[in-house]
Amino acid sequence: MLFFTQCFGAVLDLIHLRFQHYKAKRVFSAAGQLVCVVNPTHSLKYAPTRCAAVQESTEQGILPPCHHHEAVHDPQLLPCTCPLFSCPWEGHLEVVVSHLRQTHRINILQGAEIVFLATDMHLPAPTDWIIMHSCLGHQFLLVLRKQEKYEGHPQFFATMMLIGTPSQANNFTYRLELNRNQRRLKWEATPRSVLECVDSVISDGDCLVLNTSLAQLFSDNGSLAIGIAITTSKVHSSEAEM
Amino acid sequence: MLFFTQCFGAVLDLIHLRFQHYKAKRVFSAAGQLVCVVNPTHSLKYAPTRCAAVQESTEQGILPPCHHHEAVHDPQLLPCTCPLFSCPWEGHLEVVVSHLRQTHRINILQGAEIVFLATDMHLPAPTDWIIMHSCLGHQFLLVLRKQEKYEGHPQFFATMMLIGTPSQANNFTYRLELNRNQRRLKWEATPRSVLECVDSVISDGDCLVLNTSLAQLFSDNGSLAIGIAITTSKVHSSEAEM
Repeated sequence: MLFFTQCFGAVLDLIHLRFQHYKAKRVFSAAGQLVCVVNPTHSLKYAPTRCAAVQESTEQGILPPCHHHEAVHDPQLLPCTCPLFSCPWEGHLEVVVSHLRQTHRINILQGAEIVFLATDMHLPAPTDWIIMHSCLGHQFLLVLRKQEKYEGHPQFFATMMLIGTPSQANNFTYRLELNRNQRRLKWEATPRSVLECVDSVISDGDCLVLNTSLAQLFSDNGSLAIGIAITTSKVHSSEAEM
Repeated sequence: MLFFTQCFGAVLDLIHLRFQHYKAKRVFSAAGQLVCVVNPTHSLKYAPTRCAAVQESTEQGILPPCHHHEAVHDPQLLPCTCPLFSCPWEGHLEVVVSHLRQTHRINILQGAEIVFLATDMHLPAPTDWIIMHSCLGHQFLLVLRKQEKYEGHPQFFATMMLIGTPSQANNFTYRLELNRNQRRLKWEATPRSVLECVDSVISDGDCLVLNTSLAQLFSDNGSLAIGIAITTSKVHSSEAEM
């Protein structure tokens, strides 16, 4: 009996995933784009201490965040970059991806262009939606966060970080695109390195920012589809030439 | 002596305008684009009564805003659409443009693609920057507003409205684009009709919204350059087909 109940549950899950996938495809017509359904993680355990320590050293004007870690520990070690958990793990840049996959169960997707479908947008802040994106020989971390920067007014913040150094990150441009209800919003920027703190990127507002009303206009039945594309940074070359 | 002082003032103004124009061209490299320097209007006289009356009738679910005016007055009359002033003027749609130019001194620019350069972004909220844009046989009103939706946290809201009916507005798509510091933000939507209230468009957040920090990243020496393009609405046709 338990076996049949589990089978029925699995079939329902598959139907739900298929439906979500269809919805995302409907929004982003591009054939062949991978759609990743990302469930939220309602986290009560942010790690302000780690970022606070990093920011203190930056404010004292001595060392940038990544160098702070390097000065304290093995120069090639960095703390866990997953913004969801106050995780005590430390490791080399090369093993961050396997740590995030194995310990935090973060999915990884291949492809230059993918669709990130965040479900249950109505959940209260703070909530995060996270995936890794493997592209152009590198891995990127996409973080969508619902947070109350102004009390009682939750906003959505989306940013992309390279699992690599800041100088490697400068070689890329990422694009996030929302497209629904005859409205289109595109954000293009250079990804930050995971050696920088995702919390400070979001608190600086240097990312795609959506008010709740705009997020509702772009979402479909409680899910928000974000098209993601990564390119080598030639997009801004015309700007640099001027 | 007074003549020479005035001449000197005029030359200084020209140099300043030329400098602003150069800055905008540097950001939006497209040759041949018109650049319009738009000075702010720090308005103490918003007209909440007019919009409140319009919204009340909408909330009662009886008539849309434009029909409300039509029911009270001559069916073809509408109140002054300039969001800056509580102006008692009422007139036909066809003469709104000349009223806005003559009474409110709002500039009008020709061309499918123009650059709107809003100066003095640091001025306290509420502040508006407004121009009219003549394109594809119609006139559009671009409103950039600095407003404190959440007390102590001013934000920038930008929207485009057609000086025409809602059904005419549905034939167009407008695009607002910010491009600076290796960041690019694009907003595309169908313009609203001036028969709708600009205040409600902004309070709904159904427009381009910028936090102060993001506005600073995109502005250059206190001025924000916004690229504007208007097309007939075929951009979203692919979405409709699905």
